[in-house]
Amino acid sequence: MLERHRIVVVGAGFGGLETVYRLAGAPVDITLIDRRNHHLFQPLLYQVATASLATSEIALPIRHLLRNRPEVTTLLATVTGIDTETRRVLLEGGDSVSYNTLVLATGARHAYFGHDEWEPFAPGLKTLEDGTTIRRRLLLAFERAERESDLRRRDAQLTFVVVGAGPTGVELAGTIAELAKVTMPPDFRNIDTRKTRVILIEAGSRVLAGFAEDLSAYAQRSLERIGVEVILGQPVSECTADGVVYGGKKLEAKTILWAAGVRASPAAEWLGAAHDRAGRLNVSPDLTVPEHPEIFAIGDTISIAAPDGSPVPGIAPAAKQQGRFVAEAIKSRLQGHASIAPFRYKHDGSLAQIGKRRAVIDFGWIKLRGALAWWIWGIAHIYFLIGVRNRLSVAISWWWIYTRDQRSARLITQGRSAPGQTESS
Amino acid sequence: MLERHRIVVVGAGFGGLETVYRLAGAPVDITLIDRRNHHLFQPLLYQVATASLATSEIALPIRHLLRNRPEVTTLLATVTGIDTETRRVLLEGGDSVSYNTLVLATGARHAYFGHDEWEPFAPGLKTLEDGTTIRRRLLLAFERAERESDLRRRDAQLTFVVVGAGPTGVELAGTIAELAKVTMPPDFRNIDTRKTRVILIEAGSRVLAGFAEDLSAYAQRSLERIGVEVILGQPVSECTADGVVYGGKKLEAKTILWAAGVRASPAAEWLGAAHDRAGRLNVSPDLTVPEHPEIFAIGDTISIAAPDGSPVPGIAPAAKQQGRFVAEAIKSRLQGHASIAPFRYKHDGSLAQIGKRRAVIDFGWIKLRGALAWWIWGIAHIYFLIGVRNRLSVAISWWWIYTRDQRSARLITQGRSAPGQTESS
Repeated sequence: MLERHRIVVVGAGFGGLETVYRLAGAPVDITLIDRRNHHLFQPLLYQVATASLATSEIALPIRHLLRNRPEVTTLLATVTGIDTETRRVLLEGGDSVSYNTLVLATGARHAYFGHDEWEPFAPGLKTLEDGTTIRRRLLLAFERAERESDLRRRDAQLTFVVVGAGPTGVELAGTIAELAKVTMPPDFRNIDTRKTRVILIEAGSRVLAGFAEDLSAYAQRSLERIGVEVILGQPVSECTADGVVYGGKKLEAKTILWAAGVRASPAAEWLGAAHDRAGRLNVSPDLTVPEHPEIFAIGDTISIAAPDGSPVPGIAPAAKQQGRFVAEAIKSRLQGHASIAPFRYKHDGSLAQIGKRRAVIDFGWIKLRGALAWWIWGIAHIYFLIGVRNRLSVAISWWWIYTRDQRSARLITQGRSAPGQTESS
Repeated sequence: MLERHRIVVVGAGFGGLETVYRLAGAPVDITLIDRRNHHLFQPLLYQVATASLATSEIALPIRHLLRNRPEVTTLLATVTGIDTETRRVLLEGGDSVSYNTLVLATGARHAYFGHDEWEPFAPGLKTLEDGTTIRRRLLLAFERAERESDLRRRDAQLTFVVVGAGPTGVELAGTIAELAKVTMPPDFRNIDTRKTRVILIEAGSRVLAGFAEDLSAYAQRSLERIGVEVILGQPVSECTADGVVYGGKKLEAKTILWAAGVRASPAAEWLGAAHDRAGRLNVSPDLTVPEHPEIFAIGDTISIAAPDGSPVPGIAPAAKQQGRFVAEAIKSRLQGHASIAPFRYKHDGSLAQIGKRRAVIDFGWIKLRGALAWWIWGIAHIYFLIGVRNRLSVAISWWWIYTRDQRSARLITQGRSAPGQTESS
């Protein structure tokens, strides 16, 4: 019996998973490798960080998603390199997996523009653990403030800085403000959580730079209305345990969240291939790595331009379009077609939630804001969630928050729990 | 204005929380101290450990539960001692809280009969983190087995030992067997998870020793039917990274779970008071600590006999009865009544779930087993859960498991994710 074409997909995010889904029925054997056992619905991760959703509502075991695909083997493993000569993916522990075609969909991590020393003070939001780490820090800040008698130190505990005003930064800042001003007040005795300061600092000239200008302006007004202070045109020049420095000014804050920069995973290093400053692989128009027609790369791990010349954004729909493209390209090759038409990104729209009944949607041909946009935002996210169970669960959680302003996942876990102790995160 | 009577309650488990609830309306100021920010519904913790429920479904923020009680201050803090002279509770970090009446409801931890060195290899189940730690270990064992080519090492990964056949041990063993034999099989390619061995080892002569003998026999038959090997009359004499030793025999197993012994929290040490071998305080019949009528102690932290002479069991209803008793005693004293009638424990019944449609219930006057007992078990647990939101959520989760045999919380979090790496738990 002839051996079937072997495909290895590294990364089970939106891009990698879509590739595997779209290869259904093709005469191939697939190995899907990820460092985590779960696929994460990243667009809602900020809701785990802000105690609105439980971890299991936005994450599903990868092998469970592919249980009905006997030709797919899921491997929980960490990739350490790629041997392009022998065509093997090298795994931590010494194992390796051979491929005929390799798909790299390894995503990105948050990055600190060369200041990795800021990370302990300003955690970013990419993994489920990032979400529960930020949740713990947010909730502990209120607990510490409740026990703090020194007024200045109490104010520092009740000052939250979000660096970066893209969708994640805007959504984080808006939800923290609602948490402090609506959900929390009846629970505390010594502090008035409504006096919490939430400060959103952005180096660029407006929030949500990827949206139309009037939507940016609306988003900023909405944030300010729910009590977020928006500071524009100010890059952060320092992050410490006590606060941030921007524009020469020091701001005392015990909680800093990082939503500013990303850096691609080390796929380019594994290949020794050309990449941009953020570590993103340069790829050919057909999404293959130059000189390696057998290696595709997709999603946040690559840098590529849309038909209009702008960079393809690092969002789920872009990664999924590329995953679909690569699956079709592989099937086409297996049928003997040598050349592949170039990948063309189609931007369907940008969405961001700001607070209760406030969101912005930029479809290009139509722009929406306010309550209607908020409902569309919610319905779209439930629609794109994977699994009926998670859709139902998130819908109920949101209904509860919407009608009662209560957030059910306010748990301080991992690390040690009581204030004044060292965290073990 | 006269200062109100100050009550400090340490521990927001079933006993401490019930005390605070039942003091509603009394002319007192209450401070409730706990090391965690959440009240945990411990009877369902094994379902978090076995990926059946999400953490937020069985835990609620303590201060949220008491948001409508302005006279109650919730403090997230670790108690380090009690100064009975000045009547102050000492907190980590140097703070202290003064009391007129103190209620100690600090619970218990699992204990290893003098073999604390076994803990890293045989984690127990008391806190939410214990639950996610065990969940991670269970799920990682299957992942490691999937990648293991050595057959003997693979078998060791697929061997799960539960030590102790009380309700927690029985429920853990039964659920792990169902997870391996029903939920998992379609997800794996290299291993047949139905060949998983689940071994329940008990030093005593029967499982569920607190139940009637025929229910014990039924429980054992039910466990064996779903594939659990039950070993009775064999104390475990050693736990290592590679397995357990019992009756001179060594059993290779990479996952050992401890459900055998408990040890009371250090309340007795704080007071320098008399206690039994398990560290449980000796208390007077009115639940006060001898020579300290101003200090009550309740729940798993004390040792006390029921009217029939048997020890009061360490279960939620017993702690709640004691909490209610203490609240009434405090109110009665505030009204000028000097003496308190002794506490009398009333045993309402014992329940344990074994597997799908299989449970045992021993009400004393009636004994139930099988499907009817299972439905009553489920309804009773949903009824006693705190919060409409959690009841709804758990009901949906169970419905999903019941109809689809899928468990939605199969997430490997905390620690590092890929096999072969060191855990940071």
